Amino acid sequence: MNIGIYIYDEAEVLDFSGPFEVFSVASRFLNEKEKFNTYLISEKESIITARGGYRVNSHFTFENHPSLDVLIVVGGVHTNEMKKSKVINWIKEQGKSVKLLTSVCTGAFLLAKAEVITKHKVTTHWEDIEDLKNDFPTLTVVEDVRWVDEGNIVTSAGISAGIDMSLHLVSKIYNYELAQKTAKQMQFDWSEKN
Amino acid sequence: MNIGIYIYDEAEVLDFSGPFEVFSVASRFLNEKEKFNTYLISEKESIITARGGYRVNSHFTFENHPSLDVLIVVGGVHTNEMKKSKVINWIKEQGKSVKLLTSVCTGAFLLAKAEVITKHKVTTHWEDIEDLKNDFPTLTVVEDVRWVDEGNIVTSAGISAGIDMSLHLVSKIYNYELAQKTAKQMQFDWSEKN
Repeated sequence: MNIGIYIYDEAEVLDFSGPFEVFSVASRFLNEKEKFNTYLISEKESIITARGGYRVNSHFTFENHPSLDVLIVVGGVHTNEMKKSKVINWIKEQGKSVKLLTSVCTGAFLLAKAEVITKHKVTTHWEDIEDLKNDFPTLTVVEDVRWVDEGNIVTSAGISAGIDMSLHLVSKIYNYELAQKTAKQMQFDWSEKN
Repeated sequence: MNIGIYIYDEAEVLDFSGPFEVFSVASRFLNEKEKFNTYLISEKESIITARGGYRVNSHFTFENHPSLDVLIVVGGVHTNEMKKSKVINWIKEQGKSVKLLTSVCTGAFLLAKAEVITKHKVTTHWEDIEDLKNDFPTLTVVEDVRWVDEGNIVTSAGISAGIDMSLHLVSKIYNYELAQKTAKQMQFDWSEKN
């Protein structure tokens, strides 16, 4: 199972490191064949400077990543990404092949721009709820939830809610017991219900 | 205010990215002069491969980092670090100059090895409580808390508890309102009381 996390300059650190941690910890309880392969994926540069000057290396770029089962599109200062047709098209293409397309925080704006969420029920960071409603009026944007599961589309609220959503994804993909064990190992107080 | 986070190969990703996120988000509410400068510090190599194959770049090494006000020593597979006299001596030296010396998860073992915690009340990851007690019997190791504040020494429980502790550090260094605003911005359910 290949999990891809799309990162970019000025992405929010916890938006990608939180989900990475969840899948990394969950894999410690699985055998070699069952493990989640979790990859950070960038557009073209391998070193990304996330918010606050945090420099992280992607595992793959758009050019060479393996085929993905799950794509997690993270938030942060997403506005530059909205203008990049290569990024938006890549997300749109991934939407046709992945089993699960998900977002953390303002990553939902990128899913909306790529038209992989259109009339879906979705969520985002509390501060951006109104903007998402105004910019994409066909969406049903809900607040005060940790994540929204619409089958093959799952969106989460801001920053740390990406951890809750990722635990939900582990539960959805594998099973509830693994998600519980992962939360316990992380000493994370998982909001199990969205 | 310079915050240093000691990272190393096989460090736990959320142990360092969680505290980094807290200080990075808190700084968005502060003016240029008040901002926390948050640096990842490694022994000598600038690229560190943390657990799960997550590659992150340190800002400084032992050789060239600025003087620190706060040092956060993270956990993960800390056993190799226990054997490195250069690392243990560096932590010991930092202990003489920083205002706050802190650990996340099994980072407490490194503080104990460096004899900066001796008879202190401390905590660590729930799975390692017994080992810490056995290895360093003069310590008072407590469980079922998110962190323990012993004045200039603060230790946290496992992985995600580093986020709770870091919010407590923001409250301690700056003020409670900033810590609350930071938690709200991160949509993190802060365990305010240890």
